[in-house]
Amino acid sequence: MHCTKKGVAALLVISPLTALLFYHWTSYRVTSINIQQGPVSLKVLLEERIQNPHPKNDHIPYRIKESISKSLTINGCVCEADKPVMKFPFSQLLFPQVSATQLHAIFTDSVLQKAKKYRNQEYQRYRKRESTAADSLILSEANSPLQYPTQGVEVRPTRTILIPGKSLLANNEIPHHVHLTASLGTFNIAAQVDGVKVSGEGEMQVHLMSPSLALLNRQLEFVTYTNTRFHPNTADVVQFKAGVFQASFTIKIRHPTMPKFYNPGPNQEYNVSTLVTIATKTFLRYDKLQDLIDSIRQFYPMVTIIIADDTKEPKPVTGPYIQHYIMPFGKGWFAGRNLAVSQVTTKYVLWVDDDFIFTSSTKLEKMVDLLEGTTLDLVGGAVREVTGYTATYRHILTTDAGDDEGDCLHIRTGFHHDIEGFPGCVITDAVINFFMARTEKIQQVGFDPRLARVGHLAFFIDGLGSLHVGSCDDVIVSHASKIKAMLPWGQSEIDEAYSKFRYHSNQESSVNEYDLYYLKNHFKCVTSD
Amino acid sequence: MHCTKKGVAALLVISPLTALLFYHWTSYRVTSINIQQGPVSLKVLLEERIQNPHPKNDHIPYRIKESISKSLTINGCVCEADKPVMKFPFSQLLFPQVSATQLHAIFTDSVLQKAKKYRNQEYQRYRKRESTAADSLILSEANSPLQYPTQGVEVRPTRTILIPGKSLLANNEIPHHVHLTASLGTFNIAAQVDGVKVSGEGEMQVHLMSPSLALLNRQLEFVTYTNTRFHPNTADVVQFKAGVFQASFTIKIRHPTMPKFYNPGPNQEYNVSTLVTIATKTFLRYDKLQDLIDSIRQFYPMVTIIIADDTKEPKPVTGPYIQHYIMPFGKGWFAGRNLAVSQVTTKYVLWVDDDFIFTSSTKLEKMVDLLEGTTLDLVGGAVREVTGYTATYRHILTTDAGDDEGDCLHIRTGFHHDIEGFPGCVITDAVINFFMARTEKIQQVGFDPRLARVGHLAFFIDGLGSLHVGSCDDVIVSHASKIKAMLPWGQSEIDEAYSKFRYHSNQESSVNEYDLYYLKNHFKCVTSD
Repeated sequence: MHCTKKGVAALLVISPLTALLFYHWTSYRVTSINIQQGPVSLKVLLEERIQNPHPKNDHIPYRIKESISKSLTINGCVCEADKPVMKFPFSQLLFPQVSATQLHAIFTDSVLQKAKKYRNQEYQRYRKRESTAADSLILSEANSPLQYPTQGVEVRPTRTILIPGKSLLANNEIPHHVHLTASLGTFNIAAQVDGVKVSGEGEMQVHLMSPSLALLNRQLEFVTYTNTRFHPNTADVVQFKAGVFQASFTIKIRHPTMPKFYNPGPNQEYNVSTLVTIATKTFLRYDKLQDLIDSIRQFYPMVTIIIADDTKEPKPVTGPYIQHYIMPFGKGWFAGRNLAVSQVTTKYVLWVDDDFIFTSSTKLEKMVDLLEGTTLDLVGGAVREVTGYTATYRHILTTDAGDDEGDCLHIRTGFHHDIEGFPGCVITDAVINFFMARTEKIQQVGFDPRLARVGHLAFFIDGLGSLHVGSCDDVIVSHASKIKAMLPWGQSEIDEAYSKFRYHSNQESSVNEYDLYYLKNHFKCVTSD
Repeated sequence: MHCTKKGVAALLVISPLTALLFYHWTSYRVTSINIQQGPVSLKVLLEERIQNPHPKNDHIPYRIKESISKSLTINGCVCEADKPVMKFPFSQLLFPQVSATQLHAIFTDSVLQKAKKYRNQEYQRYRKRESTAADSLILSEANSPLQYPTQGVEVRPTRTILIPGKSLLANNEIPHHVHLTASLGTFNIAAQVDGVKVSGEGEMQVHLMSPSLALLNRQLEFVTYTNTRFHPNTADVVQFKAGVFQASFTIKIRHPTMPKFYNPGPNQEYNVSTLVTIATKTFLRYDKLQDLIDSIRQFYPMVTIIIADDTKEPKPVTGPYIQHYIMPFGKGWFAGRNLAVSQVTTKYVLWVDDDFIFTSSTKLEKMVDLLEGTTLDLVGGAVREVTGYTATYRHILTTDAGDDEGDCLHIRTGFHHDIEGFPGCVITDAVINFFMARTEKIQQVGFDPRLARVGHLAFFIDGLGSLHVGSCDDVIVSHASKIKAMLPWGQSEIDEAYSKFRYHSNQESSVNEYDLYYLKNHFKCVTSD
């Protein structure tokens, strides 16, 4: 009795523990993966199959069409300045010449060697992180009995999908066989068709066989793919084989881009104050800042204004809907811009300089309409000087793939297209420093705090591929007069201190934008007009 | 003489002006585009072609394999809680049950209707901005004489490329014809092959014809595509036709992702101080903050520490390599985190709470090694309480596509895989609040300033698809004791004020993370264990 009681007690303790252990042991299938390499083997696999489709045609001659072939950048890129045709007064203004800067030239030799080595190493690692099998060239071969999806097959990580559109048209082998192979997931079948033998369910290679083509194709409709090797954004290559015929296609494995919507709130109207935050950066010029605020309040009394301030001895800036942030002294314009936009909680953010003045031409509603009604992410306006001269600073930015030395950046004044339905507005790549943008997009691109005060275009270059940019010439803000401040006898003490800091200061820790084009963005040269 | 002089003078003035006008007129080919619609027509075009490949097989029966077919989320998703099997002490701890939250239930009816309407509108616009023809399903048809590239063809906006891999195998028509059609660009030829007639050069449709198949295929090698309708990130669909046979493939039109490298600087060594910035947020707890700083300095005397501070009456925090930012009172933890990371100028940023203590187990070098040597973007460590209990807070986040009501979010404790070569480290989706990350990635995802103090996982959910996350259990930071602060008689005045603000404050302007899952991220429900 004594032993039995102890035995029962022991059992009562051990059984749940065993059950618990068993439960955890069967739920965990811990596998180990190597994430140092990147998808090298898949790329090699694909490239082996892309051979010159008709090497036997190589002997057929051709005549090069210069005008087209010179626009192909096959073996790298160059930055070439225009050769000056003739020089006369205002020639640069009337016929702007393109200049070229070779970026390596801004570094001393010893610094350059070290920078190049570091940059190349970073570039290799970056390629491993960014490339997937979905970028590789795949060809669909002619006269193949295989049908399969070439694009559009996606699965969320660790999930399962049916693979659409696979089938086999008649071939000579009986019974009919097909093989499917993958590397980052396994195959299975969601339903069984009688008369088809399936082997390899739950494996990375599955084999289907049937004497009947119709039955085989019906079974193919039910083949599933499950991602088993986790990665948040990658692609698997599926090999689809029947006899001597083989095809490859990719399955993207990724979470879709996460939406990041803004909502004006349950009790709020849909207007500039609930949709837009105004952001600015200030340094010393509190009088101009106050003029800006007063001018905004004439038209938008309730819009939130965020101010980033890196003045040495900051003064308070107060008022309804004012948010004032104090930074360490002299952190700079880019750091200030990045700070200000990091605090925005509305759908759009409007960037202004602290010496702008709002007028009745500063119709923010027009910018909101454009952003609400189109696929644009950012819309620039126009800045009017006291002279009446109004600037939109529209620029086109293009790049060409280069070599180990880097890529080529080309900057030109201009724009791509007019925008239908929005007169006075165009599509471009860079705009003046008065613009409204979708908050999540501007936060994604960011203003690089490594830059101090110069480098307006650096933001737009960082945004290439991410930002769809527009510009309207009829949303106009005025620029407070600089004339007085530029005359030696017209400068107040503040103007003098400001000017000294902004234009003549040597901050050790800041870099200029050309350094960053080379070191950060992997360019080797720049042309601009 | 008099007239001639005037005439000559007039000519001297008018000619350059005319030349100028002519120059500008010929350089500007301004076209207008509609950017309101998104690529609807291309999608429809493709979907018409994806028909059930073998509707004649529909009569063939099949037997469903439950275990596989239930994991397919074909018609939306659901969030289901586990049914409790049995309840006993510690049952939730030993056998965690999954709970489910239907997000619409957190809103009142009137608020919900308005929110849904707004969110649906945002979602439609978002789809127009984000989708391109490169996402659509395309099938490669069997037994087609056409060979063409199915993936990997890319052109930078406004640039020109050769289209690789196109050719035609024998078909019955003589002479042989092929047509190529596009919507966002034009075709041309980089070289002419004699014996082939080409029409439509420079147009959106080109036609090649030749009595000889070999000559036609040689000419096809030289066909170019030029993007003419600008968009920073889109895709064109090319139709490739020969007689009754037709194939579609896409050409991606985009700038490649812009690299954003960091460089320690020409005279700097490659170590934690040059690669890492430590970022934290503080409120009231200056004593704890100072303990943190002192403990960091024991091991890393020169690493930069950025402090975001939203205390009501902030005190100065000074010292070498300290950057102290003052925020408006009570902006919150997320706003503070977003501010702090917006200011980082090093390659990596380490997030810490202001009440952590560094010890000899806080080896940041290990996190740097992992980030330098793998494709990870973020690595979490472990936080040790005074009791000795150490937490890594690893969570797996998965999502399923839903319906108009939204998608489904599933949160589970755990991880995906061990990491080869890094014992103690795993791949996961969310980690504890002590992590090191690539600066450009953490800035891209961002901490949403709309959240005030709660919602740790919200950051990782925003990062789904963007962040590759790891966790190591042997990089440990200590958590300053909370025990004293939690006992009523142990609280200092500061602890009391802190506690009151953090745990009991009702900020009108802040939202909690469930609001955002619904309104911002388009989820309808959440399950978690």
